[in-house]
Formats: sequence, structure tokens, C-alpha cells
Amino acid sequence: MKIITDVSKKKTIRVGNVEIGGNKPIIIAGPCSVEDEEQVLKIALEVKNQDASILRGGAYKPRTSPYTFQGLGEEGLKYLKNAGIKAGLLTVSELLDIRDIDIVEGYVDIIQIGSRNMYNYPLLKEVGRLNKPVILKRGLSASIEEWMNAAEYIASNGNLNIILCERGIRTFETYTRNTLDLSAVPIIKGISCLPIIVDPSHGTGRRELIIPMSMAAIAAGADGVMVEVHYNPEEALSDGEQSLNFDEFARLCQRINDFTSFFSK
Amino acid sequence: MKIITDVSKKKTIRVGNVEIGGNKPIIIAGPCSVEDEEQVLKIALEVKNQDASILRGGAYKPRTSPYTFQGLGEEGLKYLKNAGIKAGLLTVSELLDIRDIDIVEGYVDIIQIGSRNMYNYPLLKEVGRLNKPVILKRGLSASIEEWMNAAEYIASNGNLNIILCERGIRTFETYTRNTLDLSAVPIIKGISCLPIIVDPSHGTGRRELIIPMSMAAIAAGADGVMVEVHYNPEEALSDGEQSLNFDEFARLCQRINDFTSFFSK
Amino acid sequence: MKIITDVSKKKTIRVGNVEIGGNKPIIIAGPCSVEDEEQVLKIALEVKNQDASILRGGAYKPRTSPYTFQGLGEEGLKYLKNAGIKAGLLTVSELLDIRDIDIVEGYVDIIQIGSRNMYNYPLLKEVGRLNKPVILKRGLSASIEEWMNAAEYIASNGNLNIILCERGIRTFETYTRNTLDLSAVPIIKGISCLPIIVDPSHGTGRRELIIPMSMAAIAAGADGVMVEVHYNPEEALSDGEQSLNFDEFARLCQRINDFTSFFSK
Amino acid sequence: MKIITDVSKKKTIRVGNVEIGGNKPIIIAGPCSVEDEEQVLKIALEVKNQDASILRGGAYKPRTSPYTFQGLGEEGLKYLKNAGIKAGLLTVSELLDIRDIDIVEGYVDIIQIGSRNMYNYPLLKEVGRLNKPVILKRGLSASIEEWMNAAEYIASNGNLNIILCERGIRTFETYTRNTLDLSAVPIIKGISCLPIIVDPSHGTGRRELIIPMSMAAIAAGADGVMVEVHYNPEEALSDGEQSLNFDEFARLCQRINDFTSFFSK
Repeated sequence: MKIITDVSKKKTIRVGNVEIGGNKPIIIAGPCSVEDEEQVLKIALEVKNQDASILRGGAYKPRTSPYTFQGLGEEGLKYLKNAGIKAGLLTVSELLDIRDIDIVEGYVDIIQIGSRNMYNYPLLKEVGRLNKPVILKRGLSASIEEWMNAAEYIASNGNLNIILCERGIRTFETYTRNTLDLSAVPIIKGISCLPIIVDPSHGTGRRELIIPMSMAAIAAGADGVMVEVHYNPEEALSDGEQSLNFDEFARLCQRINDFTSFFSK
Repeated sequence: MKIITDVSKKKTIRVGNVEIGGNKPIIIAGPCSVEDEEQVLKIALEVKNQDASILRGGAYKPRTSPYTFQGLGEEGLKYLKNAGIKAGLLTVSELLDIRDIDIVEGYVDIIQIGSRNMYNYPLLKEVGRLNKPVILKRGLSASIEEWMNAAEYIASNGNLNIILCERGIRTFETYTRNTLDLSAVPIIKGISCLPIIVDPSHGTGRRELIIPMSMAAIAAGADGVMVEVHYNPEEALSDGEQSLNFDEFARLCQRINDFTSFFSK
Repeated sequence: MKIITDVSKKKTIRVGNVEIGGNKPIIIAGPCSVEDEEQVLKIALEVKNQDASILRGGAYKPRTSPYTFQGLGEEGLKYLKNAGIKAGLLTVSELLDIRDIDIVEGYVDIIQIGSRNMYNYPLLKEVGRLNKPVILKRGLSASIEEWMNAAEYIASNGNLNIILCERGIRTFETYTRNTLDLSAVPIIKGISCLPIIVDPSHGTGRRELIIPMSMAAIAAGADGVMVEVHYNPEEALSDGEQSLNFDEFARLCQRINDFTSFFSK
Repeated sequence: MKIITDVSKKKTIRVGNVEIGGNKPIIIAGPCSVEDEEQVLKIALEVKNQDASILRGGAYKPRTSPYTFQGLGEEGLKYLKNAGIKAGLLTVSELLDIRDIDIVEGYVDIIQIGSRNMYNYPLLKEVGRLNKPVILKRGLSASIEEWMNAAEYIASNGNLNIILCERGIRTFETYTRNTLDLSAVPIIKGISCLPIIVDPSHGTGRRELIIPMSMAAIAAGADGVMVEVHYNPEEALSDGEQSLNFDEFARLCQRINDFTSFFSK
């Protein structure tokens, strides 16, 4: 590695009026899957209402079984983009298939590479050729070193606007869906120039852990969190058990806000 | 899952004159990477000489670092195909990038989906549309259930010629590169209709363990093994520490042969 | 480490007329828990009937919950000893509490240190002072190196009659109770002077996997297997789902026997 | 489980003038090993100077190799006790051997059960009969459920003064010594009545991660942290690479203090 380990060049990534890796932790929120036009708009308005800055929503879903809901595809991206515009939010969505790169790039402000694709080197090289920020999630069982090398695949192709995202690793523990490895936050801060955010929704898989683990992430130095929000988690088409409802989301944003003002004093 | 769990329809896969999942365990062998025309031919002749039936060789290499040897690409596939023809062996090589599917399909008899791509669902769907056998390696930290679902992604698109390959999972143990989970062999035999082979080279990462773990794999019921062989492992461009030399390879083939004739009595 | 890594002094352990680490793999079998006098005797007679050589049975049980059956204690040891005498079998049972060392030593031919006590160094030191063979199970998440150091704790106190037992490690996979790490067999053979056996009952937690994994263990070079047997596994007080019934046990012994004659030819 | 899962009876543990599980997170600090009288006193005075409340120090050390420093034993406990008295601090030290229970109980205010002994049920039962608080560390690869059952072993014998301590679990990641599972903090808070502290020294094994992970622990809701401190970490007889020096320790205490006043507003 050469590029992302140059800690003398700490990167702050600017997208629109949002700064990632700056002084204020960001909040990325939205539904696991874009389900329909109304759903994503309703959630987007609440995300904006709580002063979060980026709207997430999956249109291409990497599902374990070929027989479950695979996402709305391009239609989902349209709904996401429209919701973002109406609510005044930036958008992020996952790119699964290298052949969809132009489509996804056309709709979103930030491209997400999911955990299952962290070792998909052709895909990493291609997003490395774009002029658009990339959120690179850590692989399910990727070591810190492999994860950083994956980022280097992107960087070495020219795109330095990379945001790492810790989202839990696979361990023997079954109480949580994954084990959120928050030590990755200060490690990445110490040995790379990239910002890092944390996804406690996937990282724990349990709604009641999202707020405390978000606070822990920020106390560890994370540049933000990415969480799943739904007005009715019980009825979400995917990942309902790890989505905050609106009340919980409001509480999360309030606490992060308090925290930030405390630290910036 | 519906298709691959139909154990009443046990599959035997025929490629040329080779039967996978039949009475005799197969041996797939060759270099980690195709390095040049001469290297792969020299190894192919020895693979044939020991009565193994399929030649493996990587042309597109999924390397952890973007700065290490990434394989010869299509040129490597040509060398592999020629070596296979001259030696009278079938060939298998890894498909990394969905955009290379036609190229790879044009050169090899069996397409390999590597460990890092087991969750690459678009790639699985595409090879599911081919009329060519696929070796599907288990992901680094994939559960048996996820692995079988990955096979179902292929099968549900029409291609039932799937050979599963256990290649070690990631655990806390650092003595070996991975932990070879041989219990996967009788499990897969019990709950799926697919043949399963074992790769003790990647599964252990240590040359001295390849022969005993190959014997163990076959004793557990595996339909074959896939091993790395090189006339000079110390000088291999990749994975030399887990490649057999020619003497060791001859011993492996001899032992598997004895074993097979014992069991078929 | 100094003592157990001296591979020039390969140990064969003799207990009564049984040789562990010699040419013939041994079979240790019996119930998970000694439940009553009749149960253990009935099983002992069948163990002997199949020509296995050592009877296992737990009297002190390390149970996850304080509220479940904790074993019969010394009474269980008496039943085990009597059953061994009547059937003409050596016996092995687990020592849990350092304060019970004299009691356990008085009843059994081999003392077992279980997985949960592999790091219990005071206990290891004490059995190191005995003149009685010890089976040392690998800890749930112990590295090969830690396991060997645990053996060295015993050896450095004078007792070199140590038999290592691979019994599965804890990984992310939930299909099996543990992941049986058979690569430990050739590794231990290569870097230590101690014999090694395999416990596929705990190593897989599933009855249908015990026979294939026993065969795999022996093909990998193991000096024997330890399995749980019960005339009525469904009614066993503990671990029924991983115990063989008598028919299955007979088949296992037959297959190991065939195997051994193959290898000794 | 019955006792420790009764969340209606949230426990606050009082030892001397210290309250664990109350409103203010506690700091437990001291050397990994008590090395001599002067060393532990010097460190104790600094621990007191920074307003931490409990002095830790190992006298019986569970070392991987039988040939490395095993601790000073009872002499070490004397030095620890004297240092505690002179500095005005409570003390905690690890009990390794059930036969030493009276000795250890005689010297310290809190008994620690280490990670390697979490499954040592006879030891848990015995400390369950004492009238002295116990810190119960999570086992290296113990699930939350097993850990809670271990606490139940203590509680069911009468001693409810149990403080759980998350100290990292064993995973595939080698950058850190263990993976600190901070999600255990809100989980334990939600399903048990016991206080929980975090040990980022063992949990990460790297000095530079101790401060951020301590802050994360407290933000996640931990009732305190336990850290290793040494005036000269490079020369510590054990665990120097994960010990804070005095400057770093002062900074840690300052930050925790700020944090606490923020949260108590």
C-alpha cells in the first residue's frame, strides 16, 4: 500500500454541502431497501427533519437466497433520487453488478460497495476510475489489512474519495448478527488517511443496540454512522429487526448532536 | 432452496471422459498461476503422467494487493488450453470479472468461481446461464447454508452442473492459512445432490499437510481433490509454499489410487 | 517448549495391554455421562464386543448451566470402574476439580482434561506430577501453539504420557457444534512427539457425521478416535444428538478395522 | 438462568467507598504483574493521583508457556495490599488456583476470575460462597449466554456481587490481540442485573487503542474500565505493549472525567 497509508494527507471528503471526515460526525440514514416511491420519500423527509445529511436506500440487494426480494433495481434508484431531491438530502446506494455502474453513478451522490463485494477487485478498479465518492464496507471476515488493500485498489485507479465503513465481522457469537469491531476506528485513523464511518445496524442486527453502539462509534473517533430507519420496521421487506423507528431515530440524532457539541467545546 | 437440495437426484457430472461424483475420486492439479507457456505445459505433462484428469491454472488472479502479479489474463488461458490439449487433460480456470465470461468460457472445460466471489450474485447468475460445469468454492467465511444458496443461484438459472469445493474457512488459528472444514463433505453429501471436492492447498496453506489432508478428504467421502503442483515451488510466482513438487505429487496420486482400489473392492 | 517438541523421541503410550501411538488406531467409546450402574455396564459390554479398547464415561460434567445434571461424581466413577473390569476394558474419565485428583486417579486408567480446562494451569501441573496417562483435549478456541504449551505444562512436571485430543474448535459455522480441525493431526505429528486422537462426537455434534469424520481422522494419521455411544441416544441425559447407537457403533468399528488392515498391508 | 437475569433488581456493588454500577464509571488500573514492592507502590500512587479508585495487579499469572514468569504469588499479594493501603486504593487480583482461595481472599478487596477460568465451574462455585465481590472476565471465545451462565454459577451459590468484564474475544483478526466486543455492554445492561466494565488493554493488546476504546466503552454504557499502567511499559515483565505510561494514563482519566460530567448533566 502506498496511497491510503499516507497519513500526512488526511482526507476530508466533500459532497455537496456535506463534509465527511471533518469536525462533525455525519448521519447517513434510510430504509434497508427502497420499497416504493412513497416509502422512501416518507423516510427521507424524516431523515431531513432530524438534520441527518445523507439518505441511504438499497435498490440492488445482495440476498442470500435467490428466491427472496432482490430490490427494485433502477426504479428504486429513481425513487431514491427523487426522495433525496425533495427532502434536500444527498443519496447513497449499493452497486452490486459492474455492468450497472453507469446507471448507479447516474442516480446517486455516493456509491456503496457492500461487504460481499469487498474482494470484488474488478468492481473496485472500476469505481476507482469514477469521479464520485465511494463507501467501502469491510468484508464479513476481512482483516484490516485486506480491507485497506481493497481501498488501495480503488485509490490506485485514481479515486481517492473513499470512506471506509466498519459494519461488523463474522465471529462465533450468535447473539448479534455480526460483531461490531469498533477498534477498527482508531486503527484506521492511525494508519490511513481515509475517513471511517460505522454501521451499527448491520454490525449488531438488533435495534436496541443501535443507539449505544452509535455513541460508542463516535466516542471511538468515527466520522459518522450509517443506520437503517423505517416508519414501520415490523413491515419492512428486509432487515426490519435492525431498523430504528422514527422515535428511536430522533433520539439517536439528538444524542449524537449533544455529543458533538460537547466534544467541539 | 429447492433444486440442489433434492437429494433424490444425485448428480454425476460428466466432462469429456471424466466423471465427477462417480465412483472414483478425481484429481485436479496444476500451478497456482499460469506463468508462461512452457511452465504450464511442463506441469500438464506431469499431471497427465500421474493419471490425474483435470489441469488447473489461474489466468485472472484475485490478489490482496493491487501491486502484485495479477495473472496473464487471456494469454494465460491460451497457454492453459494448449497445455491441456497437448497433455490430453481437461482444464479449469477462475472467472473473476463478469465481463470476461465469454473469453473464459471459450478456453476452459470447467469454470471456477473462487472463494472471494461466492457472494457475487450477478456472476453466479451468469454462470447459471451457461452450459458448462462450474466449480463453486466456499467463501472464506461462508456458512454451509450460504454456500448452498450460492449454488442455488447458479442452479435456479438453469445450470445444474455444479461442483462444490471446500477450501478452508477463516478462523482464529494462524498455524494454517485457513481451517479446512472437512465436515462439509459428509454434510453436503447428506443434504444436497451435488458432488463436492476439496482443495487442501488453499485449505491449509502448507505443503506438508496436503497429502494427509487429501487422504482425509477422500476418506470423508469427497469426490476428488484439487491441488497446486509446481516443478519448482520455491520459484512459483504465487502460492509456492502450498504447492507440491513433482515427487510429492506422484506420491499423492499413488496413495489416492491405492485408496480408491481398496474402497472399490 | 522443549520436551514435547522433541520429535526424535516419538512416544508410544502403553496402558495395560493397549498401545496408543503405535501401529493400530485405538477406539475409545462409551456414554457421555455415566447415568447409572446398568447403563454403563450395558454400553461397556458392547464396546468390548466390538473390540474397542477403552471405555469412556463422564462422572464430573462441566455443564454450561448450573441448573442441569452435573454428573454422578464419585459414584459414577465406581460404576465406570466396575463396568470396565467386568467388560475387560481400560477406563478414562474427566477430572474437573483439582481437589478431586486423588479420587479420579484412584478409579481410572487414563485421566481426561477437558476442553474447558485446557488453560487451567494449576490442574495441568498437578496431573503432570502423576504417573498416569492424560488425554489433553484442545481448548474451544486454543491455537495449536497454546495447546502444545498446555501439554508442555504437564510434561515439564514429569508426566510424559500425554495423548492430545482434537475435539473441534469454535468458529462462525453453526451447522456443526464445533469445526473439527483435522489438520491438527498431521501438524501435531510433524512438530511433537505425542500421539493424537480425535473426538468427532464433540467435534461435529451430529451423529450422522461421526463415521465419515472418524475415517477422515484416521486417514489424516490420527492414533485413534473417541466417540460417544449409547444404546438409546434419544434418552441420554446429555449429548444424545451426538452419540452413536449400537448399530452405528458396530459399523464404525468395522470400517476402522478394514481401514487399518489396508494401511498395515 | 434465574438470578442474574432478573433485570428488575439492578445491582450496584459497593466496596469500601466505591460504587460500581452507579452513576459514575470507575477506573481500575495498575500493572499487569506485581513485579516488586517498589514498582506496585509507585504505580499505586499515580493511580490514586489521577483519582482512579481501584488498584489492579497480578500475583498469580496464567501464562501460555510454563517457562515464563508466573508471578510472585503470595508475596505479590502482600505488595499489592500494602500499596493499596498506602495509596488509599481498593485492590483486585486474579485467583487462578482454587486451593489459593483463602490466601487471595485475605489480601484483596475484589477477586478476579480471568478469561481462562471462565469455564472453571468448581472455582466459580467456590467464589460463589464468598462474601466478596468478584470480577468475572468473559472467556476468550465464550458466548454471551455462556458468560452469563458462568455468572449464574457464582450467583446460585449465594454471591451476587458480580461485576462482568468484557475483555475481547478471539476472532480471525490479528491486528489486535483480541476483538473487543463492545456490543456486550448494552446487551448485558439489557438482559442482566449486573454491572459491566471493559478491559481495553487485553481487549486490543495495543497501547494506542486504549484511550479511544475506553471512551467508546463508556459511551456504550459501561460502568468502568480496567487498564494496565506502568511507569515504564517497555520494561514491564508482561504485557508492556498494552500498558499505558503515566502521561497516557493521566490523559485517559481526564477524558473519562470530562465525559462523565457531560453525561451527568
